[in-house]
Amino acid sequence: MELLESLQWRYATKKMNGDKIPQDKLERILEATRLAPSSYGLTPYQVIVVEDQELKEKLVPACYGQTQLADSSAVLVFATWDEVTEYSIENYINEIAEQRNIPVEVLGDLKNMMIGSITSMEHDQRITWSQKQAYIGLGFSLVTSAVEGVDSTPMEGFVPAKVDEVLGLSELGLKSAVILTLGYRDTENDSLSTMKKVRRNDLFIRK
Amino acid sequence: MELLESLQWRYATKKMNGDKIPQDKLERILEATRLAPSSYGLTPYQVIVVEDQELKEKLVPACYGQTQLADSSAVLVFATWDEVTEYSIENYINEIAEQRNIPVEVLGDLKNMMIGSITSMEHDQRITWSQKQAYIGLGFSLVTSAVEGVDSTPMEGFVPAKVDEVLGLSELGLKSAVILTLGYRDTENDSLSTMKKVRRNDLFIRK
Repeated sequence: MELLESLQWRYATKKMNGDKIPQDKLERILEATRLAPSSYGLTPYQVIVVEDQELKEKLVPACYGQTQLADSSAVLVFATWDEVTEYSIENYINEIAEQRNIPVEVLGDLKNMMIGSITSMEHDQRITWSQKQAYIGLGFSLVTSAVEGVDSTPMEGFVPAKVDEVLGLSELGLKSAVILTLGYRDTENDSLSTMKKVRRNDLFIRK
Repeated sequence: MELLESLQWRYATKKMNGDKIPQDKLERILEATRLAPSSYGLTPYQVIVVEDQELKEKLVPACYGQTQLADSSAVLVFATWDEVTEYSIENYINEIAEQRNIPVEVLGDLKNMMIGSITSMEHDQRITWSQKQAYIGLGFSLVTSAVEGVDSTPMEGFVPAKVDEVLGLSELGLKSAVILTLGYRDTENDSLSTMKKVRRNDLFIRK
């Protein structure tokens, strides 16, 4: 299927049928997500990949009873770092040096620019900035799921504190930002599955 | 090229060579962007597609002198609606009714839920929410550009008020949120083009 056909095929699946995604498909979706760009490449968030059935079921009440979580194959919870410390920036700089096989000293200016720019943000501003980066990752997950023929549901309708509690995110210094369930549509019970996709036709302004 | 190879191939291009993207490729990138999901499907933003050379050049000083804007083939400026009015929600509801060929009355509950939920947000909160939706669209543009073999540069480094002024966005009730240039890499002059892509290997937490 061509990319655009895949994107026409996808929709926010409200009922899933419980079938498992083949592991290789899940791994490709995750790898695409990992390749998403972010400001400075820092990706100031983690993606919690929940396949455990009990945990998926515990997420349902934290997400206003949305049953597609329990009937999904995996749930991706994008969770931003609550703090971005000099330590985490240094870790990242070390990773660049290692992956590119260059001396870390070469990256001194980049490191100082990142520390200056990121630590000067107010806490709320930094969370918003981190969330936006996570949404780029979400976009990559969404497109790749569609290409893999895997259904998905992007979800903002949840109580972050409750999701954080179910997954023990506070202890990890993380805050849930947005959720994507992955699985297969239950065509018989999801009335949305047969509805025409609606998108605004006036999105573009040409100059 | 497989999707993952395309995503490995892409990078934030800092120098472009001025070549034009074939029109059909640009249109496919835009159509993929239009198909991106958003909260309620409202897509509370516009995408300004700038191909005019003079305007692209005027954007350079508004973006800290980044020359890839002038040397790109097109610049996409994602700009959020400064206000989300009942009128714009009603317009969207009418569009759903028309595209799905159903009576608009059927959508009364959806309309009221949207109005209640969106108009109850504080202005800043709504802008942030709108920006996040735009970042999903950005993700779709980024992946599709890579699949089309088109280089791109996601950019947060710009002065929104200046970009808004160059494009006359305030008069349209819009605020620039994030920018994506589209074009082709200038491999000789962009040292980043040959550098190994670095991505954090510890993005995922499996449960």
